[in-house]
Amino acid sequence: MSLDDKATKPHDRLAQALADDMAAMNDLIHERMKSEHAPRIPEITAHLVEAGGKRLRPMLTLASAHLCGYTGPYHIHLAATVEFIHTATLLHDDVVDESQQRRGRPTANLLWDNKSSVLVGDYLLARGFQLMTAPGSMRVINILADASAVIAEGEVLQLTAAQDLATGEDTYLQVIRGKTAALFSAATEVGAVLAGAPETQVRAMFDYGDALGIAFQMADDLLDYGGSSAAIGKNTGDDFRERKLTLPVIRAVAAADATERAFWSRVIEQGDQREGDLDHALELMHRHGALESTRKTALDWGAKARASLDIMPAGELRDMLADLADYVVARLK
Amino acid sequence: MSLDDKATKPHDRLAQALADDMAAMNDLIHERMKSEHAPRIPEITAHLVEAGGKRLRPMLTLASAHLCGYTGPYHIHLAATVEFIHTATLLHDDVVDESQQRRGRPTANLLWDNKSSVLVGDYLLARGFQLMTAPGSMRVINILADASAVIAEGEVLQLTAAQDLATGEDTYLQVIRGKTAALFSAATEVGAVLAGAPETQVRAMFDYGDALGIAFQMADDLLDYGGSSAAIGKNTGDDFRERKLTLPVIRAVAAADATERAFWSRVIEQGDQREGDLDHALELMHRHGALESTRKTALDWGAKARASLDIMPAGELRDMLADLADYVVARLK
Repeated sequence: MSLDDKATKPHDRLAQALADDMAAMNDLIHERMKSEHAPRIPEITAHLVEAGGKRLRPMLTLASAHLCGYTGPYHIHLAATVEFIHTATLLHDDVVDESQQRRGRPTANLLWDNKSSVLVGDYLLARGFQLMTAPGSMRVINILADASAVIAEGEVLQLTAAQDLATGEDTYLQVIRGKTAALFSAATEVGAVLAGAPETQVRAMFDYGDALGIAFQMADDLLDYGGSSAAIGKNTGDDFRERKLTLPVIRAVAAADATERAFWSRVIEQGDQREGDLDHALELMHRHGALESTRKTALDWGAKARASLDIMPAGELRDMLADLADYVVARLK
Repeated sequence: MSLDDKATKPHDRLAQALADDMAAMNDLIHERMKSEHAPRIPEITAHLVEAGGKRLRPMLTLASAHLCGYTGPYHIHLAATVEFIHTATLLHDDVVDESQQRRGRPTANLLWDNKSSVLVGDYLLARGFQLMTAPGSMRVINILADASAVIAEGEVLQLTAAQDLATGEDTYLQVIRGKTAALFSAATEVGAVLAGAPETQVRAMFDYGDALGIAFQMADDLLDYGGSSAAIGKNTGDDFRERKLTLPVIRAVAAADATERAFWSRVIEQGDQREGDLDHALELMHRHGALESTRKTALDWGAKARASLDIMPAGELRDMLADLADYVVARLK
């Protein structure tokens, strides 16, 4: 990939525009991930933090604060909070999913152990909570504490909804709103609240983050069946093997005849997966247009995210955020 | 045990004196442990919450607030926060320790699975953070967020210090201060801060909780080698099997000759444990007075806790807290 290519990606353009803030946030993260007493904490955190994540969520907080005219110093703290909460959930997710790879590297639970991932995740979550008190805003604290509860609730819901063919689109939306969109919407909302933006703008930034997060997760779920491994950093078919009820499966199941239903019941509910089953699942999804319709729904959410920004002050920052909404679903082309 | 016996225990007397508050807190906990979307959350939480824990930590918050003259409603919220943080750490601890029993019942990780324990723990932690915003006090939030970070740090430190014979008493004190005393001291400190008590009283209540927590954990660690299974609700020798460097072991190792050192190295560092090893370990501890000296140190911390209360307003509540400090180590007689 050439530098020119890179610069056309909205999140790279955002990172360039917010370069000073991003550097300050990275410094703060490095400072706060230290532990005087337990050196394993920074070891594990560094493994994740320095693996080259996109820092998409904290960038949203920084961008939202600027877009709403904030000129103080505390958006850095809130962005770091958002990244700490995100990193904590990654550590715990990898334990829950028994993952082996994250961001193209072996996961912490594989390199160290599940115990360390659980406890270091707890530590980072608490570090995030410490940082969010910096602006002294009770509302900001409420938003981020609420988001943390909704994230965990979404993850538990996913756990119980997995392997259950009766899972519908409403439940799926609840799951991804919880496990993914809640942190996106909290990230954008706190930026606006911190800036003291009018309630209509706070609501618009929340809606943007919510729709962006939903579009982002839907795209991820679709790429797990259709994208290349390189593009998403994890192996195609992971969700199938983990018997997760994501939108492509839910829609294929909804359109299934008796024979197809028996297939889904065997591979998802009973977990009896054999060679060729993933290919057959893909064939069924294509037959019923489940992948195409999922892509369409994800694009709709991307468009909704973009439209939420209409009432925000026009300018380069708003354009970049709008382009980001297109970009997260453009991966699906 | 007769009712009269029961009423002589300081935590039962405290529970009686604070009965209305405790009932209000239990109601709040039950209300907040619900999840509209993920029924597994209240299932697991109820399993733990209703297993008859002593509610010692939240009781400390309630007592501290009253002792400092608080008359408002928010000590209930903070007590519930403390209990949620505690319950979250129990869920995660059982995953980390691969425990099978907790409070005399099978653990959640055994009844459900590790995944649920990790995620429901995260949920309860976030629920606790939501509740702590109720009084609108940034200082209270800081204290509880700090405590959460210190708890996780202590747990990680214990993980890395385990199986390492070089672990000294300083590290041991750091571990138990983190994993146990930090929540005790935060529980008592926030009660005083909420009440707007003078700084000397805030400090005294912090010192009381800190020393009480240390005495409590030291007693637990000693009982793991000497107490009956019934008295502490877990099996004797758990720490030995988990190769944890608790004070009795640290002191026995410090006094060990070459042969004894080889024994400790085999069972703790190499984890090669055979039949009779626990008995031999106990014999070595007795030989060097490690159990007796641990008991003495625990009693010293209990006395320190009691003495911290000297500057607090005299009365029944202070007496009960002082008696509690004696009681947590009186288990050792």
